[in-house]
Amino acid sequence: MKETINVSWMDGMAFEANVSGKKIIIDATENVGGKNRGPQPKPLMMVSLAGCTAMDVISILEKMRVKVDKFNVRVEGELTEEHPKHFSKMNIIYEFTGKDLPMAKLKKAVNLSQDRYCGVSYNYRESFELSHEIRIME
Amino acid sequence: MKETINVSWMDGMAFEANVSGKKIIIDATENVGGKNRGPQPKPLMMVSLAGCTAMDVISILEKMRVKVDKFNVRVEGELTEEHPKHFSKMNIIYEFTGKDLPMAKLKKAVNLSQDRYCGVSYNYRESFELSHEIRIME
Repeated sequence: MKETINVSWMDGMAFEANVSGKKIIIDATENVGGKNRGPQPKPLMMVSLAGCTAMDVISILEKMRVKVDKFNVRVEGELTEEHPKHFSKMNIIYEFTGKDLPMAKLKKAVNLSQDRYCGVSYNYRESFELSHEIRIME
Repeated sequence: MKETINVSWMDGMAFEANVSGKKIIIDATENVGGKNRGPQPKPLMMVSLAGCTAMDVISILEKMRVKVDKFNVRVEGELTEEHPKHFSKMNIIYEFTGKDLPMAKLKKAVNLSQDRYCGVSYNYRESFELSHEIRIME
């Protein structure tokens, strides 16, 4: 399967990304010459990871007939200080809100994503440490 | 250095990502239960790569006093067919438009990004083959 995306220079450090017909503006922050008109490129690596595993988990929970009221996935990343400044670690925090949520099923859904379905996790794990936590919120 | 992003479930397969104050909706396509309201997670890995190296190159060219009229970065990615469906290869195509563009300087800027500055390239190269091409457009 093939995918193609394109980014076109606007001005300064801003680029318009075209992703299967959807447009996103990406930009750098002011301290590195940008105008902060959109997300920076590196955090998008984390959004890609969070979205990939979150979609796995929500669809697995649906098949398991587990109903959640709220579901957030937070990713914390650590970047090296020296060039090339790259991710050395990411931690994924799965936060579920709902009535009498069954922790065993939540764990199973998360583990299926991490071990079998989430290709972004697979790619990243070859480059840096990837950990995760599951939290049931009050 | 630390970064944090969050994605919150909206409904179906749609999530709202919050990236340093900027919001992006991500969604799945209709064939996997989504409504295609925003980019899918995996192509965002390619946007992250394109944006990271494109910002390097445009700022290096500015220091070299090379003026380009247009600058696009296209990324072509190949995904495996089997689970976990992950990237097995990406190719970056740098396309420059301008008057009498000096290929040697364009190459130098791209190589500096690929070899020294682009942390996304560094991470990805540990997981799959990453190639690139430079094109001067008519």
